[in-house]
Order: sequence, then C-alpha cells, then structure tokens
Amino acid sequence: MSIFVLMKKRKPLILVTNDDGITAPGIVALIEVMKTLGDVVVVAPDKAQSGMGHAITINATLRINKVKIYGVMDEYSCSGTPVDCVKFAVNKIMTRKPDLCVSGINHGSNSSINVIYSGTMSAAVEGAIEGIPSIGFSLLDLSIDADFSASKKIVKTIALKVLKEGLPKGICLNVNIPKLKFDEIKGIKISRQAKANWIEELDERFDPQGKPYYWLTGKFENFDKGQKDTDVWALENNYVSVVPTQYDMTAHTAIKELSKWKL
Amino acid sequence: MSIFVLMKKRKPLILVTNDDGITAPGIVALIEVMKTLGDVVVVAPDKAQSGMGHAITINATLRINKVKIYGVMDEYSCSGTPVDCVKFAVNKIMTRKPDLCVSGINHGSNSSINVIYSGTMSAAVEGAIEGIPSIGFSLLDLSIDADFSASKKIVKTIALKVLKEGLPKGICLNVNIPKLKFDEIKGIKISRQAKANWIEELDERFDPQGKPYYWLTGKFENFDKGQKDTDVWALENNYVSVVPTQYDMTAHTAIKELSKWKL
Repeated sequence: MSIFVLMKKRKPLILVTNDDGITAPGIVALIEVMKTLGDVVVVAPDKAQSGMGHAITINATLRINKVKIYGVMDEYSCSGTPVDCVKFAVNKIMTRKPDLCVSGINHGSNSSINVIYSGTMSAAVEGAIEGIPSIGFSLLDLSIDADFSASKKIVKTIALKVLKEGLPKGICLNVNIPKLKFDEIKGIKISRQAKANWIEELDERFDPQGKPYYWLTGKFENFDKGQKDTDVWALENNYVSVVPTQYDMTAHTAIKELSKWKL
Repeated sequence: MSIFVLMKKRKPLILVTNDDGITAPGIVALIEVMKTLGDVVVVAPDKAQSGMGHAITINATLRINKVKIYGVMDEYSCSGTPVDCVKFAVNKIMTRKPDLCVSGINHGSNSSINVIYSGTMSAAVEGAIEGIPSIGFSLLDLSIDADFSASKKIVKTIALKVLKEGLPKGICLNVNIPKLKFDEIKGIKISRQAKANWIEELDERFDPQGKPYYWLTGKFENFDKGQKDTDVWALENNYVSVVPTQYDMTAHTAIKELSKWKL
C-alpha cells in the first residue's frame, strides 16, 4: 500500500481552542463532537479571552500547562490569547500539522463586525494563516446554561464537510448558530459579513477613592437591515450563517482609485 | 455665509493614537506634524501595546488620565488597547467626529501579514469602522533613536491628501516607510498586502524555580517574493508602501463555491 493511501486512512488530527477559556461549556461541547471525528489536541486559554481579537503576546512571557480534563490525546491550558494558543499548538506541541482547527463554541454571536474583535474567530483566522482548514463556531446564547445540543449536530455536519472537502487557500469559516432547538433551525446559509458597528457607551463608575473607571459597552447597529445575503439576516431568520473569512485585508477595489493620487 | 461654508473653513480636528505608548518617539513625531495641520487630540495607551491586534477590553475596566505633555488641544493616556483608545476618544472625549485619525508612527514594519497583529493598524481600522478617514504609519526602524525626519515629510504629504480627498467608505490606509533618508526614498506606491506569514519559534527559558516559560518569536516568510504590486516589494525597493485596508473580512470570491456545498 502506498504512503499516500496509508495517510488517507490516518485518523484526522484536530486542534481545538476557544476564547472563553479551557473550562467553558462551549469548548466541552466542541471537544465532545471532535472526539467522534479524530484525535484531539486541546490548547486553550487558562482564562476568558473574549474581545482579544488577533492579539499576540510579544511584550510578556507565556506559560503553558499540561492538563487532564477531557481524556483526549493531548491537552494544555495557556496563559496567552487564542492566537497564541494556535501558534503554540502548531509550533511547539503537535508533531504534525493538524487536519482541522476548530475554535469555540463561543458563548455569543461573532457575526458581522464582531468577527474582528473576536478571539474565537481570530484563532480560526490564525489557523488559516498556518495553512490549516479552520472553523470558528459561535452560539447566540451567552448563558452558562446554554443548550449546545443543536449546535453539536451543526458542528459535526460542517466539520465533516471541511475534513472531506478542505477549504480554499487563505480562508476559514465563521459559523454562527441561532439559539433554537435543532428542529427549529431552517438550514445553513453561506453569507457575507453584514455591515454594522457598535455605538459605544463608556459606563462610568467611581472607585472607593472617588476616581472614575469605565466599562466598555454599547449597542449593535446593523446598516445592512433586510439584506438577505448577510449573516445577521440568516440568524434573524433562523438559519445558521457561514461566512468565508479571509486574512487578506487589502481593499483590492480601491487600489486603482488610489493609484490616481499624485503623491 | 452658509453653515457648510463655515464648516469647510473650520480647522481639521485630528485624533492621534499609537500602540507603542504615549511617550514613544514615534508618536512625538506624529504629533509634531499633526499640530501643523489642525487641532490635535491625543488618546494613546499608557504602556506599549504592540501585537494587540484588534483587542478591546471587555473583561476588565478602563482608566483614562488627562496629561499635559505635548501642548495640544486635549491629551489623555489610557489603560486599554489602541482600539479602546479610539473608542474612548470618539465616544467620550471628542465633541465632534474627527476629520482624521492617525496612528503611529510605529517603530517597526506593519506591512504584509503584520497588519492583522498590529495595534497601530487596528486603531486605524477602528477609525474606519467609526467612519473617520484613518491612516496607520510605520517606520521600518525599531530603534529608540530612529530618525523620523523623512517620515515626517511623508506623513504630512499623505495626511494632507486624505484631509483633502477623504477615503473610500470602509477603508483606511496602511503606510509603511523604509528606513532611509528622504532623498533616498524613490516615491510612494499604492500596494497590496503581500502573502506572507511568520514561522514561529517559542524561545523556551526556565524561571528560578526551574519551570519553563516562553517568548514568542519567529522568522518572516514572504510567499510573494518578486511580486511588484506588494507592500514588501515596495519597501525592499526603497518606496513607501500604501495599502488600502478594509475591515470587511468576507472572502466574497468563495461565497459562490461554498454555496454549492450540500449542508
């Protein structure tokens, strides 16, 4: 038998991470599904890292600790960001490049502009940068008691498809799942990132010394209301949204226009 | 005289931030140029925030302190990330939306894939999300004694152009400047983000208790060698690179292909 055939028969090697931390219910659900699909390595933050975007730790040192929580092939908690976790896993822990990198299941939406602030999605984007088929999963439910049973079926369907088909070069998937029972979900829609932003409010409070401090908060504003090709529309209409997401941030369409500038 | 004419005559209002912290030589140079162009408000991190990408502070509180270093209209140091600084400035400090948001001058390159890890560029991207014409500037010189004299001329040229012409919606500029004297710079080239990544190395050391810790480091690998339309090529050939950069991360070209998937 050729090496190629032997390789094809090899069990998939799957890297699991998240941004809610290694003990979050969402990663428990994700690991449960991935255990049915292949050999699982978990490298996840030792604490919540929501909103960390594509941050990496370069001004401080990193710690990594072997743990034994989930009974998978290998599992570590890491003091860094979700992107650090992927870099650690690929460059220090795993003996070969994983066949799949999955991040999540995030507690809360990463649709629309949230993708850019999301640690969950940044881990998936980093997976894509490393040349690994990668997916970020999010459930639109912030509760610690969120029901991940429908999500687990969706996760399995999409992960199997990606393991079989791969993904175009330079692209990962941003999967968002509405807070519904499995039978209530209408289907899976390939979508684009809705144009939207956050109208920030800085919630001012005062410490015991009377000095102000702030919590960053805000209201979500969708500029693409009613646009049926967006992720926000899909979710509002009981579909799972799947946005192909890239790390090439060049606005290619603007190059021609700006090239006319005399600088 | 109409309100419009009055508005056009108003001095530009300019927000300045960075990721190397409010005392870095690069922001000093940037503020010096901006003072010649308009009213300047500085909101910058109180410490180095390199590699923070698009991180925001949502699991912790933020502090902001009025300072008087640069003699500009208003200046604050902020405990948060570069993106937090922009959110703070726009939503809490400034009485109207700035005409320009500039970030930098970063000590070191933000060309190619570095854009996604860069706090400097993430601040500019956040400016674009807020609807402000925004530019991130970086000089390819990490030294504390870096010579910003050529950079200051480049910064002025590009900032004036953006103040005059504006920028296409949803787009900011990623400007990288080679480490050269002004006369040695061949010109300014509108470019695309080169395809490249970092081959990470995790530099392992041991603490006094014998436990390992790590520094994230690595080697830059350019997959677009010789491609003359990239930012890396421009910089290697003594040009300033200007990449129009967007926050829509949708891989629009992949939507059609993935839509064929039966999910």
